[in-house]
Amino acid sequence: MAVGADTFPEMHPVKGFRLGATKAGIKKPDRRDLVMMEALAGSTIAGTFTLNAFCAAPVTVCKRNLMSLGGAAQQNVFLITNTGYANAGTGTQGMANAESVCQHLAEQVSVPVNHIFPFSTGVIGEPLPVDRVVAGIPDAINRLSESGWADAAVGIMTTDTRAKGASVQLNLQGKVVTITGISKGAGMIKPNMATMLGYVATDAAVAPDLLQLLASQATQASFNSITVDSDTSTNDSCLLVATGQSGVTISESAVDDLEAFSTALQSVFLQLAHAIIRDGEGATKFVAVQVEQARSADEAREVAYTIAHSPLIKTALFACDPNWGRILAAVGRAPIPDLAVEGVSVYLNHVLIAEQGGVAASYTEAAGSAEMQKEEITIRVGLSRGDAQATIWTTDLSYDYVKINADYRS
Amino acid sequence: MAVGADTFPEMHPVKGFRLGATKAGIKKPDRRDLVMMEALAGSTIAGTFTLNAFCAAPVTVCKRNLMSLGGAAQQNVFLITNTGYANAGTGTQGMANAESVCQHLAEQVSVPVNHIFPFSTGVIGEPLPVDRVVAGIPDAINRLSESGWADAAVGIMTTDTRAKGASVQLNLQGKVVTITGISKGAGMIKPNMATMLGYVATDAAVAPDLLQLLASQATQASFNSITVDSDTSTNDSCLLVATGQSGVTISESAVDDLEAFSTALQSVFLQLAHAIIRDGEGATKFVAVQVEQARSADEAREVAYTIAHSPLIKTALFACDPNWGRILAAVGRAPIPDLAVEGVSVYLNHVLIAEQGGVAASYTEAAGSAEMQKEEITIRVGLSRGDAQATIWTTDLSYDYVKINADYRS
Repeated sequence: MAVGADTFPEMHPVKGFRLGATKAGIKKPDRRDLVMMEALAGSTIAGTFTLNAFCAAPVTVCKRNLMSLGGAAQQNVFLITNTGYANAGTGTQGMANAESVCQHLAEQVSVPVNHIFPFSTGVIGEPLPVDRVVAGIPDAINRLSESGWADAAVGIMTTDTRAKGASVQLNLQGKVVTITGISKGAGMIKPNMATMLGYVATDAAVAPDLLQLLASQATQASFNSITVDSDTSTNDSCLLVATGQSGVTISESAVDDLEAFSTALQSVFLQLAHAIIRDGEGATKFVAVQVEQARSADEAREVAYTIAHSPLIKTALFACDPNWGRILAAVGRAPIPDLAVEGVSVYLNHVLIAEQGGVAASYTEAAGSAEMQKEEITIRVGLSRGDAQATIWTTDLSYDYVKINADYRS
Repeated sequence: MAVGADTFPEMHPVKGFRLGATKAGIKKPDRRDLVMMEALAGSTIAGTFTLNAFCAAPVTVCKRNLMSLGGAAQQNVFLITNTGYANAGTGTQGMANAESVCQHLAEQVSVPVNHIFPFSTGVIGEPLPVDRVVAGIPDAINRLSESGWADAAVGIMTTDTRAKGASVQLNLQGKVVTITGISKGAGMIKPNMATMLGYVATDAAVAPDLLQLLASQATQASFNSITVDSDTSTNDSCLLVATGQSGVTISESAVDDLEAFSTALQSVFLQLAHAIIRDGEGATKFVAVQVEQARSADEAREVAYTIAHSPLIKTALFACDPNWGRILAAVGRAPIPDLAVEGVSVYLNHVLIAEQGGVAASYTEAAGSAEMQKEEITIRVGLSRGDAQATIWTTDLSYDYVKINADYRS
């Protein structure tokens, strides 16, 4: 089950960035389960990672290597991703296994081991089968190609029902700059098939600090603004690589170019994040929760998340029930101080459903029901407290969500 | 669906406290839907109420009257509870309606209107049918009786599948002191059939400030330590009334008596709160989440709530799946600083399942599965950070939870 059409986009290659996916038989036979990516020497790298204290071993290795390189790679960089096993909750053996995979790959491609970035997604707690991963490395390297995006998008899938990709091009300084990315995930956490993963590459040249700033900003408004079930994975990671091969440099001194690039980058991140929500576990709705007139963006996010996490609102969305009482109740219990309920307004798409602490005089159940039948719904809340806003994207809570998560291991 | 046997206990009458329930036809015919309670003049009163900014009109009136009386009633006090309509999200008309009911009742029983405490539970947003409530008042008054507890427990039910009561007696100062109470609720919020309500009465004499302290403490460890779905109702209220008719005075100067009374009171509150969880929407499990070795009780509660709210843990409980990875992931994302995962241990009942950042060496899936088959489960988490602890009680997340909440209004 997923929301909207399954349209994997045209993926523009990124000069200096190659991808290859192979069937390594890591957990199940005959499926692409090992994905290699390579960025040319001279690339810069930024990353955003889960804040979960039980983060997976590969997350620890990625963060360490990113720091060790200072975000700039003198030699080729390799990203290796296995599915089937998350290598999380695996203690010291898990770290040894992640490092062993990196060591084997570093030797085969003759780069320092801090140029290897490992990613794992799958069952938590079971040991990573290092031998099978290592055995798959030569074929994955062999398949590296600048046109390997679609194969890689399939290769990183676990319980995803769709491959997820986004690609944009823009003209800067008389040249074409490409930003292309893929993601996986069907919940904020898939605790056994753990993880949201995102990989975005551009052929622009961007200095490490600026690249990290752009990655953090884009992540905040995309991957950090979606929720299926409020659970945060142990393995969530998103890497942004800039190869510089387009010959275009993005810097803070050319503000217009920076803004155009930043906007395009955010668009790619947002498309990848939205694709995860559309493919959310059991999802039948794609819901934007937009909170406006808040004192701060943080306050708007708090209210939006309280709505987006409410099981009662999510079940009402599944039932196509314009249950505005549940929305008011969620706004009322959001952790923000001194909320004056008289100033709160709630819209379902463009239909005003509640204002001044109660149902709107103009509201009819027929109008609300008509909006709730739609597959894409915006819940818009005005707080009358300021001019900050935030949007969080989420799904409904369906029988299938329970089925997927209750049946998964058994 | 509910957990454990349905055993409504023997309810010891409380001297000076009478209850009556009538069929007022407020929403549906032929069911007890209007409950009256009366406490004799001289009673003291304490209350705890929802923190939801969209609190219902009757909650506002109760808080105002409690303050106006200073917790001590010179004349008889009346508690009037209707089901069918929550009188929440009803704006200024809702306040006028609540006050109108109080005014009518005050006139009939000849007490000042600030001696009337109104409670409503039912659909949010629809106007309270004042005429039908008022028409039911004479018969409700007529039925007032010290042995009316069981009828009242039934009369306050909405989607509850069981009446909920608790009653204890203790000997103090050579006399018998009784504490008896009832509650309703099948979720922290039933957003249309909104509300958890609790009414507890004792024939001890307790000064208002001490009574409020005892009520707040008992609420924190009971009604404020349970969660079905993380949603907080607009109508949640719990009133504690002390009639003083036993002739026993509880005060801070007699510490042993105070402690005995406080322990008994907490027991009544906890039984009533547990009854709500056992009757939780779609519940098949009664789960205690016990977090130990925390730096503070607040920290322990944060971790316990993160576990208790996780849809992924709740679906695993429903599936009887000892999915310890989901528990570790929830602990890891709880909002507490600097958690060292090496110090975290997780038990399912008495089975150690995880320690030192991964699965315990002694753990077997068979042992974990055996515990998960049970209807009552304790998830015990040790943090190795201090000696504070907290327990939160919750249920699983089942198909029936989705069904109840998706089908309710349609």
